[in-house]
Amino acid sequence: MRFIEKLKAAWKQNNSLVCVGLDPDLARFPSPLEKKASSIFAFNKAIIDATHDLVCAYKPQIAYFASESAEDQLQQTLDYLKANYPHIPVILDSKRGDIGSTAERYAAEAFVRYGADAVTINPYMGHDSAEPFLRYADKGVILLCRTSNSGAGDLQDMMVDGAPLFEHVARMIAEKWNGNRNCMLVVGATWPEQMSRIRSIVGDMPLLVPGVGAQGGDVEALLKAGQTTDGTGLVISSSRAILYASSGADFADAARAETLKLREQINCFRKAA
Amino acid sequence: MRFIEKLKAAWKQNNSLVCVGLDPDLARFPSPLEKKASSIFAFNKAIIDATHDLVCAYKPQIAYFASESAEDQLQQTLDYLKANYPHIPVILDSKRGDIGSTAERYAAEAFVRYGADAVTINPYMGHDSAEPFLRYADKGVILLCRTSNSGAGDLQDMMVDGAPLFEHVARMIAEKWNGNRNCMLVVGATWPEQMSRIRSIVGDMPLLVPGVGAQGGDVEALLKAGQTTDGTGLVISSSRAILYASSGADFADAARAETLKLREQINCFRKAA
Repeated sequence: MRFIEKLKAAWKQNNSLVCVGLDPDLARFPSPLEKKASSIFAFNKAIIDATHDLVCAYKPQIAYFASESAEDQLQQTLDYLKANYPHIPVILDSKRGDIGSTAERYAAEAFVRYGADAVTINPYMGHDSAEPFLRYADKGVILLCRTSNSGAGDLQDMMVDGAPLFEHVARMIAEKWNGNRNCMLVVGATWPEQMSRIRSIVGDMPLLVPGVGAQGGDVEALLKAGQTTDGTGLVISSSRAILYASSGADFADAARAETLKLREQINCFRKAA
Repeated sequence: MRFIEKLKAAWKQNNSLVCVGLDPDLARFPSPLEKKASSIFAFNKAIIDATHDLVCAYKPQIAYFASESAEDQLQQTLDYLKANYPHIPVILDSKRGDIGSTAERYAAEAFVRYGADAVTINPYMGHDSAEPFLRYADKGVILLCRTSNSGAGDLQDMMVDGAPLFEHVARMIAEKWNGNRNCMLVVGATWPEQMSRIRSIVGDMPLLVPGVGAQGGDVEALLKAGQTTDGTGLVISSSRAILYASSGADFADAARAETLKLREQINCFRKAA
């Protein structure tokens, strides 16, 4: 199934815009697990099993695996998701971007090696650097637009013809890069005003929204700014606030409770479909 | 030794501005080697042994390893370089970029896991996304500025206050991000005019220059545009033209001959120190 259809089905089936970000941080692993790389899959599995009926996507962040030489744990996590929850799309958060011949390799990393349904990429190098990803028409390609971090504006807010760069990026992607209708944009929850502008530019293109939870984004403001007329259009990702809700043996239950809470907070502000 | 000092020493010792890019492409491996992931290190080793006295750096491109599940081959390559040619700096070409907490993991991937001397990163997310790399004062942090690909201008040439974005990026990095004096910029050989502008902005900051060889950049024009007053300041990277100069048993000799040729072409246009 195409990523975008899979996402729409998951929004509906689980009545949820919540994406759980899988950022396995050994130092914060709960007490039942050894703080070592070989525990990562067990940690992810416990989180997934406890939340799969509450989410619209999972988003493993590849840096947390790469820094621990734990590509095997990432592969196991993807394989487990495919085998057990094939209806939940998986976004590999890797923010790659390179010249075409190299981008082909990164696309193979995400889509062939790991079998992800979607991948995050960086648009700074231009269309031909994104094209090897976009060519996978069934996969989602999620481009950085206005990111959630404090320094996001350093480049993204530079004014070009009277509008900030990120608006030009949004328009260029919506109008020129989205021929396969498989693009999404990353827009931080920490910037509702910018999200509102982006929504007005890209129509109903889905947005991946990091920055709630540990980064402090406001749920009401982001829903008001970013949801589409049918109350969807957002993949709202929370990682640390869910994963490390408890450091004890109840960590998976605590993760479920946090996910439920976030789903409800979000659903309070969703328009009826 | 600090990366920048190591680079200066290698420029001098080998009288060379050439960087060999290690982009191991199994489909193009020469006949003596099996076209499989476990041959990658053997291929790299043969190239390295044949060229180590002719180069100022090696630049493994991580996508070529990741797409083949060959992190072990990358590690072996880095370990081999450290053990045998510790005076040649190694640039991990990975073009990472993410929020601070994740960027810390990517910095660990490059500098701790693989032990690279320098890494390429993407500036689109702003200063706080680069800071976890910049903090490694002994390491080199090489930021994308004006890349070599055909679509580079899509974002990088957008006009901001009368000057293209890439010039603002160059100035911001030179003036605000370079407190540890460990920054470099990526500037494609395919754009000598832009390189000239960047050189005038960043003083003697070294530039990593892809785009000669397979991508067609002109050596004379790039030297004229990019070298510093002492005839250095450039790390000119060629990958495919060197690696795949021959598909036969003489591939390492052919790689050496191509590297020699490129070094000479470049040295013809260098100012005397």
